[in-house]
Amino acid sequence: MKVSLSLEKSYSDDVSIMVDVLRASSTITIALDHFQQVIPVIDHENARALSKKLNAVLAGERRGATLNGFNAGNSPWEIQRFNGETLVLTTSNGTRIMEGMNSRVLIGCFNNAKAVARVAQKISLNHIEMVMAGVEGRFAIEDFLGAGFIMKYLPDDEMDEFARSAVLAVENPEKVDKSILNSRSGQRLKTLGFEKDIEFCLKRNISKNVPVFHQNVITSYQK
Amino acid sequence: MKVSLSLEKSYSDDVSIMVDVLRASSTITIALDHFQQVIPVIDHENARALSKKLNAVLAGERRGATLNGFNAGNSPWEIQRFNGETLVLTTSNGTRIMEGMNSRVLIGCFNNAKAVARVAQKISLNHIEMVMAGVEGRFAIEDFLGAGFIMKYLPDDEMDEFARSAVLAVENPEKVDKSILNSRSGQRLKTLGFEKDIEFCLKRNISKNVPVFHQNVITSYQK
Repeated sequence: MKVSLSLEKSYSDDVSIMVDVLRASSTITIALDHFQQVIPVIDHENARALSKKLNAVLAGERRGATLNGFNAGNSPWEIQRFNGETLVLTTSNGTRIMEGMNSRVLIGCFNNAKAVARVAQKISLNHIEMVMAGVEGRFAIEDFLGAGFIMKYLPDDEMDEFARSAVLAVENPEKVDKSILNSRSGQRLKTLGFEKDIEFCLKRNISKNVPVFHQNVITSYQK
Repeated sequence: MKVSLSLEKSYSDDVSIMVDVLRASSTITIALDHFQQVIPVIDHENARALSKKLNAVLAGERRGATLNGFNAGNSPWEIQRFNGETLVLTTSNGTRIMEGMNSRVLIGCFNNAKAVARVAQKISLNHIEMVMAGVEGRFAIEDFLGAGFIMKYLPDDEMDEFARSAVLAVENPEKVDKSILNSRSGQRLKTLGFEKDIEFCLKRNISKNVPVFHQNVITSYQK
């Protein structure tokens, strides 16, 4: 099984795991305990219109901040207070990246690492690709480390060298946590009052939900 | 002090450290105990002609293999048997990368990590850039880990997230060694009979030589 790591760009035609640790991957993973589906939307006005049409809960962010008139931020912590059939979620990066993929798309993070790795192995033919969402096109340490943690549960016989580097980087969990708390995204979230979200996003293997993105709708993988 | 990490491309106009762990950085570092200067040359025929003209020792490789008629490979192990004023060295990647730099250029590896970090801090104004040589344009784990090890000795207050990831990845020295032995470059060198070179390249802080590349000649940094 080939396992590779890339930033933003997707090359696999088999299975990809989108990793956006702070916070889309975690919000979506946790939301699937409270909603049957999550619809990710790039544009805020489209999201507003869709949530009105579907009478759905509306959550989202722009550069980490919750948007006016939205029920919640892109916040795993906040999202737990809501329930319903559909969550409409705007995210900075994740939606655009997933829409550009030509593979079966899963969503992964620290919260569901073991579960998403298991499903990826089950459904893949020959290539599992980890795609870091990054921040505005740039490398983000939280996604590198989140991808590394997921790959601890994947076979390493055909793992590329960038992927192997990420696995090496999660050797010390305390330093991993500290690095993410002090990352650019982490610091922005702290400034905006979302410190609890960062702590939440760092929890390992607390969920068995494996979000699957298919035809612009995210649902939980069903065996 | 800004500290950043990049692959092949150089952005700094202050100080750059070129990292080509297997094996150019190590060969050059060790060669400066045996030669007053190293002249890196991209083309093999030019290297032959220059060594003849200067009556210099000639060393080099193509894809890891020693070239016909050369005195030695790009091999830190072999180079210790030679002495002289000038070593002419062909390398796959390093020369081209250094010629493209617009900064003061140092050469670093596991062998001289502490020394090169100290000199970089001493001579830099505001930005130390680590440049991984990679292999034919691609990410190489040995250069990521070598850069990470050097950066353990650099200030981390303005270190970019890619650089921080490399520092995290060298947390466990045994896994670092194993990863480099099993890397693409490592495996190729083993096949070619250069296993002793890999072991040599992994030795930490055995040299105080800090190679400086200036006007196409490499000499040791003098206080």
